[in-house]
Amino acid sequence: MNKMVGKQSVSFSDPPCILGSASICGPKEAEGPLADYFDIRSEDPTFGKDSWEEGESEMIRQAVELAIKKADKKKEEIRYIFAGDLLGQLIATTFGIKDLDIPVFGLYGACSTCGEGLSLASMTVAAGYADCVVAATSSHFGSAEKQFRFPLEYGNQRPLSATWTVTGSGAFVVGKAEPEEGAIQITGITTGRIVDYGVKDSFNMGACMAPAAADVIYQNLKDFDRKPTYYDRIITGDLGKIGQKILFDLLKDNGIDISNQHMDCGIEIFDNEEQDTHSGGSGCGCSAITLAGYVLKQLRDGTWKRVLFVPTGALLSTVSYNEGQNIPGVAHAVIIERR
Amino acid sequence: MNKMVGKQSVSFSDPPCILGSASICGPKEAEGPLADYFDIRSEDPTFGKDSWEEGESEMIRQAVELAIKKADKKKEEIRYIFAGDLLGQLIATTFGIKDLDIPVFGLYGACSTCGEGLSLASMTVAAGYADCVVAATSSHFGSAEKQFRFPLEYGNQRPLSATWTVTGSGAFVVGKAEPEEGAIQITGITTGRIVDYGVKDSFNMGACMAPAAADVIYQNLKDFDRKPTYYDRIITGDLGKIGQKILFDLLKDNGIDISNQHMDCGIEIFDNEEQDTHSGGSGCGCSAITLAGYVLKQLRDGTWKRVLFVPTGALLSTVSYNEGQNIPGVAHAVIIERR
Repeated sequence: MNKMVGKQSVSFSDPPCILGSASICGPKEAEGPLADYFDIRSEDPTFGKDSWEEGESEMIRQAVELAIKKADKKKEEIRYIFAGDLLGQLIATTFGIKDLDIPVFGLYGACSTCGEGLSLASMTVAAGYADCVVAATSSHFGSAEKQFRFPLEYGNQRPLSATWTVTGSGAFVVGKAEPEEGAIQITGITTGRIVDYGVKDSFNMGACMAPAAADVIYQNLKDFDRKPTYYDRIITGDLGKIGQKILFDLLKDNGIDISNQHMDCGIEIFDNEEQDTHSGGSGCGCSAITLAGYVLKQLRDGTWKRVLFVPTGALLSTVSYNEGQNIPGVAHAVIIERR
Repeated sequence: MNKMVGKQSVSFSDPPCILGSASICGPKEAEGPLADYFDIRSEDPTFGKDSWEEGESEMIRQAVELAIKKADKKKEEIRYIFAGDLLGQLIATTFGIKDLDIPVFGLYGACSTCGEGLSLASMTVAAGYADCVVAATSSHFGSAEKQFRFPLEYGNQRPLSATWTVTGSGAFVVGKAEPEEGAIQITGITTGRIVDYGVKDSFNMGACMAPAAADVIYQNLKDFDRKPTYYDRIITGDLGKIGQKILFDLLKDNGIDISNQHMDCGIEIFDNEEQDTHSGGSGCGCSAITLAGYVLKQLRDGTWKRVLFVPTGALLSTVSYNEGQNIPGVAHAVIIERR
């Protein structure tokens, strides 16, 4: 039996597997340290389309189709897709997946969407509602800057605390499978609450999200009665260097030290000094392609056995920001283990 | 055992119950034909706050808290909340629920969100991942016009095909319960695909959404091998008068006549002639408060035994619209039965 664990977690008795994953990125990510791990690296930031938004949709479409192919499945075998992006009303997702003809659950968790989607995907498969589903997400530097900050043509300066939205899309096929050695399983989840520490600086997303990451990591360890050493890596989404420091401090205040296990996708995905990306990468795509490309390879190779994947989201819009609201955070934790 | 049914449906062997529901609306809805069914009717369209958006958040907060109270539950007993609204990055939801401290799954299904939320809520409870969860959604005329069309101050004219976004929020407590006579159960769901018939007119949302509604209703009847007469009512969200006609035509092309069972929340919620709301009400809140207030009362009273609730969403943003994209639709069907 699947069961509720502690206050916010679920463990799966017959854990669903990640049967296939795909990652696609833009030109800047293709020059970063993880470039070799991504399946498709485009030199064209609009992916052959006429706008940033259409380019982002094209990325999602390609990522989903490739993930299905790599899982050796057909589109018709996918019962649901759980997907979302950063743009208002999820237009990148809508126009990316509309022709796939797969029943859809649209999600918004800001940059935590990859964790939200994998959580719901694994809940759905573990409950027997589907044999095979897809979780997908994306972000695009051009469409995100236009959505949240300034049009690229404006050429605004960026403070050192700012992160750089990753142009990328990651897709995952989650399904039932015979529990073979080396299978990549989702064994449990911890779903996050919205955490608001009163931060208002949209150029310092790391500080907005770190409290939510600390909250859900703390809760995961508590619910499952584990030490950080249970995991080979505890992988946050896009806290960047400033957010990482806050995360360590908040957990240390609760007697938990994750500095030996911690990795942040936003810190890894760019060479932040060389590539002028300041505090690190961000966006739904940042954690999604780092998981699909780099992290899952470490698990498949057996380099790592167990990771806690914790993408982090900052909850704001230009409207909420301009009306003086805080920027709360949310984070969702997914336990991924090599069998 | 819960089981997959047909191509897009799930049936629950031990159906979750709607343990409590709450509806809150603004001044215009309070003058409409369903006014007496709503729990809270506000004379103040900003609900005591400084902006449309903050007012919308306040509605959600009040609806969720009242639904929990009416279900005779405590906030601490709610394991997850499934919630979303129409605004970019779900800011109405974020600031409405952030202080509730409940793990959250953020959803975007445009005006179909109530169906998406109830689907995931019932899947979660039926699988044993939670004893009790909340599904909630909202919309607000002022914030939606600003988001999708023009600021209210501009005073634009509206064509007769246009709908009027409902100011309202509906919340539902879904949980395990002893199967007593008269219990309101969610016995199954049919999850919709995105359907794009190439319509581009954002002042004719009914035409954008009707094909998706027809698709999911057709699939529900096919998956469960039912006739429309199985249901006392088949209730769409906000097709309005024009969308209703298209829905009937599309289903008749497939040999299905639902004209005796059909009800559209958008048509019922306003006196469209008297209240100058043209084609009908719309928005996530339209179907949500009609369900929470009017429909569930008919089921509780025993007037109806079985309804198919099918909220409908139009997938667009000002960016996708201005870039010349179509407006696809999506709809999610939830089977609600009185035991």
